[in-house]
Amino acid sequence: MTTHATHEHMSAAILSIGDELTLGQKLDTNSRWLSQQLVDLGIPIVEHVTVPDDLDAHVAALARLAARCDLIISSGGLGPTADDLTRRALAVASHDSLVHDSAGEAQVRAWFAARGRSPASINMVQAQRPSRGLLLENRHGTAPGLFASIESSTHRCDVYCLPGPPREMMPIFEASVRPALRPPAGRVIETRVLHSVGIGESDLAQRLGSLMDRTSVPLVGTTASGGVVSVRIRYEGEAPRDQAKLTVDQAAGKVLILAGEFVFGEGDETLASVVLNKLKQTGQTIAVVESCTGGMLGEELTAIPGSSACVLGGWITYSNEMKQALVGVSSELFAPGAPGAVSREVARAMARGGRERSGASIALSITGVAGPDGGTPAKPVGTVWVSLAHARGSDTRRFSMAGDRASVRSWSCTAALAIAWQYIAGRSHALLRQVEAYAE
Amino acid sequence: MTTHATHEHMSAAILSIGDELTLGQKLDTNSRWLSQQLVDLGIPIVEHVTVPDDLDAHVAALARLAARCDLIISSGGLGPTADDLTRRALAVASHDSLVHDSAGEAQVRAWFAARGRSPASINMVQAQRPSRGLLLENRHGTAPGLFASIESSTHRCDVYCLPGPPREMMPIFEASVRPALRPPAGRVIETRVLHSVGIGESDLAQRLGSLMDRTSVPLVGTTASGGVVSVRIRYEGEAPRDQAKLTVDQAAGKVLILAGEFVFGEGDETLASVVLNKLKQTGQTIAVVESCTGGMLGEELTAIPGSSACVLGGWITYSNEMKQALVGVSSELFAPGAPGAVSREVARAMARGGRERSGASIALSITGVAGPDGGTPAKPVGTVWVSLAHARGSDTRRFSMAGDRASVRSWSCTAALAIAWQYIAGRSHALLRQVEAYAE
Repeated sequence: MTTHATHEHMSAAILSIGDELTLGQKLDTNSRWLSQQLVDLGIPIVEHVTVPDDLDAHVAALARLAARCDLIISSGGLGPTADDLTRRALAVASHDSLVHDSAGEAQVRAWFAARGRSPASINMVQAQRPSRGLLLENRHGTAPGLFASIESSTHRCDVYCLPGPPREMMPIFEASVRPALRPPAGRVIETRVLHSVGIGESDLAQRLGSLMDRTSVPLVGTTASGGVVSVRIRYEGEAPRDQAKLTVDQAAGKVLILAGEFVFGEGDETLASVVLNKLKQTGQTIAVVESCTGGMLGEELTAIPGSSACVLGGWITYSNEMKQALVGVSSELFAPGAPGAVSREVARAMARGGRERSGASIALSITGVAGPDGGTPAKPVGTVWVSLAHARGSDTRRFSMAGDRASVRSWSCTAALAIAWQYIAGRSHALLRQVEAYAE
Repeated sequence: MTTHATHEHMSAAILSIGDELTLGQKLDTNSRWLSQQLVDLGIPIVEHVTVPDDLDAHVAALARLAARCDLIISSGGLGPTADDLTRRALAVASHDSLVHDSAGEAQVRAWFAARGRSPASINMVQAQRPSRGLLLENRHGTAPGLFASIESSTHRCDVYCLPGPPREMMPIFEASVRPALRPPAGRVIETRVLHSVGIGESDLAQRLGSLMDRTSVPLVGTTASGGVVSVRIRYEGEAPRDQAKLTVDQAAGKVLILAGEFVFGEGDETLASVVLNKLKQTGQTIAVVESCTGGMLGEELTAIPGSSACVLGGWITYSNEMKQALVGVSSELFAPGAPGAVSREVARAMARGGRERSGASIALSITGVAGPDGGTPAKPVGTVWVSLAHARGSDTRRFSMAGDRASVRSWSCTAALAIAWQYIAGRSHALLRQVEAYAE
């Protein structure tokens, strides 16, 4: 029986298996999670691959990746049904045959017994493993993981096969895979991610200048998503860990010097989490009043664990009648010739009314034309007003968002949170204009 | 200049590019969306691949996939910065060189001009294309797409490179890629998807029985996601189109006979869209009152274009004080020894208060413990009460949701919409118990 890996894992590939993935019926979240784990360990990832439930394609992918990497982690294809082919593919790719594992059978039987049931005969296939491989215990389902090596005379690649459901895959990785991994000795990966808002990707790149050269150490890159531009800094090399960390920190320092006024957080932080933390630290509270976003801003704020410490709640004033009845927007503003629902006046009245009625320290309002219908020449689809009401007054801004209904709504929330962040963090007024310019 | 494809696309690969993907910093949603589009067109997908921002890896992936497929659709790497390598990779892989495209430059300049800005000099790299390739217009950003063919003496593979941000990628696919694709002649793919709620995936599979055999024609499979179980029916073969359609329709008919009481919609329909359409048809309106979901239910309802015809709005009553002040929940319910915020009584009072104050035909409320904190032995994390207030009274149910904060919140919205659907569609009370049993 092959023992667990004792050689170094210099490079890894992530393999996902399933028709539901290649047919686009399901989103592959496993690859991201597994990548995060390997990056944390310092094992570089050279490729993600997804293949359908097809034995030949599966074997070909294993063979190709095994020739290129020393580590493959796959997920999917370990169920009991005829379309679950990972066991056979691993056996073929590792030039081995499948054997019945009695400890594996006991595991499957125990899983069913604990639920007062007996396994179906098809479940017994889940006790099979390559003769030189290992079963990896699954405490959260009937599909044990598998380990085997694919070896040539000069090269060895360790393959860990995990079940597809994340809540089975993750615990097996933690219990049986992570302890067996051997990051390359002396090889260090250090990363940092800074998040900015209010500046476009190309403007940010221009500020960062030669920092972003592909030959620089560490590597600096940017990614834009929904109004937030993230700066990723990565060192990969042989330097001692503290030296690598210093290099990355110095690069982060340069980013902050060149564009720090736009940087609101790093790592897992989001605009919503940063806003909530600042509110919490200063004992403040927040309420929302949403028209076109219909609850999305509230949803983003309350997605964060512990948000009840500072989110009081809010109003979804989708109809004009609700804007009047719930937060006291004057009916005159909706009369013919008046500013109308999508206007500075209504946005401001919504935020003020929400702040007064909730007693929150600040209130954010959003009203706009999310489309696809409802646009006019004066107020085309994408016209959005955002207002922040605070103790000293209010700050109300117009945006012209591009994209479809979902984009307009999502960018509107980002704009609202950006304005709240700038207010709470005491950032400059000039920056607020940049946010506006960016969205337009 | 190469013209657009005129040969058949028998097999396709999807290529995603970016360090942020291989490092696990970002989820790849483009591959799923692109797969769905190709499957709809009848073009089989043999592989998804993701590579980092590395020219050699990018070129190698293009060359390998081009030898295997006649179509590659890639996303990412078309930005203006030095880590955006798709232009160069495509030129190298197609044995071509990059040239400046003056129409492309005009496009980039126009994009900035429309926003009252001038492009940075680095943006001019976005006007480059392989000399035998084409630029694909981008109306939603500065990164035009690219088209080129990778040809050998015997084989030609068409490559479409799209920018990474979905709101730029999708419109370019629709405008410039879809019309140029040529599904294999004589090959027919017919699909139908039925969506169910209130029944677990294995219970549904048991009802469907031999319909789900992997050797059956058409293929019938199930996918579970957030409380909705979808039945996917797919015919792939050489039959005439109307014969294929009949085969799929007959299978759908069998599904409806075996499990029809759980089926709420098909295709692009969602619980929210079905509920909204039924409300619209019957001239009714809806309001929401949300505690632990913090706006998510409102967000789901208003995500649907035209929802303003029947969504009046609602309240995010996150704190107990807001529950009392905004929708009139009695303060006695929060006293020591009283039912408390997560209870039948409070859920019912929230829904009733919301219905009365909004004048809506029906109101839905949600209150629960989404976690990770806040659970008690009597009300563990995942305990959720949902209430529907309607003209004849109210219907209030308790659920015990599994999973993390995000799952509990998302399942809670599904449960609320399921109850509304069953009420509006006049489904049986027995089914409501099934919904409850499923979630518990």
